[in-house]
Amino acid sequence: MALALSLGRRGQGNCWPNPAVGCVIVQGGRVVGRGWTRPGGRPHAETEALAQAGEAARGATAYVTLEPCAHHGKTPPCAQALIDAGLARVVAAIEDSDPRVSGHGFQMLRDAGIAVATGIWGAQAARDHAGFFLKTEQGRPLVTLKLASSFDGRIATGSGQSKWITGPEARRAVHAMRARHDAVMVGGGTARADDPSLTVRDLGVDHQPVRVVISRHLDLPLMGQLARTARDVPVWLCHGHGADHERIQAWEGLGAKLIPCASHGVQLDAADVLQQLGQAGLTRVFCEGGSALAASLLAFDLVDELIGFTAGLGIGAEGLPSIGALGIGRLDEAPRFDLVETRPLGKDILHRWTRALR
Amino acid sequence: MALALSLGRRGQGNCWPNPAVGCVIVQGGRVVGRGWTRPGGRPHAETEALAQAGEAARGATAYVTLEPCAHHGKTPPCAQALIDAGLARVVAAIEDSDPRVSGHGFQMLRDAGIAVATGIWGAQAARDHAGFFLKTEQGRPLVTLKLASSFDGRIATGSGQSKWITGPEARRAVHAMRARHDAVMVGGGTARADDPSLTVRDLGVDHQPVRVVISRHLDLPLMGQLARTARDVPVWLCHGHGADHERIQAWEGLGAKLIPCASHGVQLDAADVLQQLGQAGLTRVFCEGGSALAASLLAFDLVDELIGFTAGLGIGAEGLPSIGALGIGRLDEAPRFDLVETRPLGKDILHRWTRALR
Repeated sequence: MALALSLGRRGQGNCWPNPAVGCVIVQGGRVVGRGWTRPGGRPHAETEALAQAGEAARGATAYVTLEPCAHHGKTPPCAQALIDAGLARVVAAIEDSDPRVSGHGFQMLRDAGIAVATGIWGAQAARDHAGFFLKTEQGRPLVTLKLASSFDGRIATGSGQSKWITGPEARRAVHAMRARHDAVMVGGGTARADDPSLTVRDLGVDHQPVRVVISRHLDLPLMGQLARTARDVPVWLCHGHGADHERIQAWEGLGAKLIPCASHGVQLDAADVLQQLGQAGLTRVFCEGGSALAASLLAFDLVDELIGFTAGLGIGAEGLPSIGALGIGRLDEAPRFDLVETRPLGKDILHRWTRALR
Repeated sequence: MALALSLGRRGQGNCWPNPAVGCVIVQGGRVVGRGWTRPGGRPHAETEALAQAGEAARGATAYVTLEPCAHHGKTPPCAQALIDAGLARVVAAIEDSDPRVSGHGFQMLRDAGIAVATGIWGAQAARDHAGFFLKTEQGRPLVTLKLASSFDGRIATGSGQSKWITGPEARRAVHAMRARHDAVMVGGGTARADDPSLTVRDLGVDHQPVRVVISRHLDLPLMGQLARTARDVPVWLCHGHGADHERIQAWEGLGAKLIPCASHGVQLDAADVLQQLGQAGLTRVFCEGGSALAASLLAFDLVDELIGFTAGLGIGAEGLPSIGALGIGRLDEAPRFDLVETRPLGKDILHRWTRALR
């Protein structure tokens, strides 16, 4: 199952709106088939693994990281494929929460006389599929928030200089993290200040995550990196209902996808933004700031994972804070996270946290 | 030598103005004497180890973490004691930079026919004795700056709540760090806001570091923890030349030591404050903030070691920053530190840095 999970993770960022599943077929102690969900979500992991195994699948055991699907979507149900291949036993890490599948996949297998076990490496599978489950259950993708700052929590000097606070190793790690998410997301302020391309570079990755910019008024440069490359790598713009019509048309003309979202005070409503992104199919979103977007996600308890890069320099109080105003008076109101790991990365430190259970 | 160094570190925080030295005497592959500088700086490590070794010192090798002293201070020179005891060989980790000793100790030993080696574990010895060397060479103590903050670098909420951002394990580590320094230092704002006692607690330590408060106008509460306990544990107050005379008298009456320092703009001159503290004998100072004092030490490049505790919570931009205004425009002006280590500590992370070589 550990192998199946690691295969499944290969699809992360690459097979949305479908879950990134891994499958290993074992016959007489030998691995006879391996598969993972392919780019775009098809073929499914089971299909791939069964094709590799061929006749060897008869009487074998299949390890899958998620309950096999039971419904006809764009592919026939995987549960049926496992039955047709003559599997003797199916071990699934976790039950699917999609109501079209939940429990039905297991039932189909059992009805066909196949032994079924579940809950094996379930906690890891729950983490790996967290984005897919969140989209299914709450309609929104998983959000990973990255903060790369000085040791006093600043992401730029007072005059706006931010290149580079962290070192090349940290920046390379960020590219690898982008590749494992369906989309990279920034606020309009960051898009204006840094003119980022938000692509995955220098990692030999051919797939690029969607680039999402949150900008209520769509006041974004029409000559920047994002505008110039919108036909090559998707650019999605979340804007307010009152955004200027000419700007909307200009961006549509450049090839961007325009997503109108509800407002909340002077900002876009972060919860509605994520609902819209979930509806558009995203399961895993990597947010790279800036301060205002980070604050609005944290204030509405919408950050699932937090990744910090801390560099060995002090910028001081005039610097730009990593998180904007949160409106917190008492410490027990502060959003809390549990530590996953901390380690040196080049000259910086990397620390990963997940939302604390309440 | 590793043993001698670890013995020597036992004296840190406890034997200023003298260096915290360790000494091990080895005869025929057996340790026959161990010693370290005793509280208050006397007896010296060599004296202790020689007393333990007795006659077994004759023809033995002594490992000492610093060149043995050659001058008559409050104790007779250790180099002479080693000669009198009939040592065959002395291995010292590093030469003393005190001009009364530097090289003279080794020369005395060689003149008496004792074999001398030096530079063994020299880098570690340089770190362990850094405070003593700084005081000798630059007249100021080593400064360790501690920053305990949320992951966005805040040390309190906007309304001033700071208890507790970090967990009990981190706070316990802070007490252990206090015990390894000659003094704990805070700014006047922190003394007013938190009314701290700044003592070492719950560690079975009988020795307490000096408590230093930096307050230009001496506007500190006369009924607080520090005032109440100034007769039991030393309180030193660094103040401006223009501080109110009645306040000076009140604090003298409470048992505090008053140290007038030069001013620099609206603040006390951090460099002069440290010179005064060095002159008063301190070799290692542990600074616990607040923002303004941290900023003024960093701005004048007076921080030698930086210790960060980062908690898994976000406070937001209204919170109190860990470092005040530094006046930095470009990133290459920011004070830089090299990573020593990072590790989890309870629910928080600990990261240690030393001043980067330029």
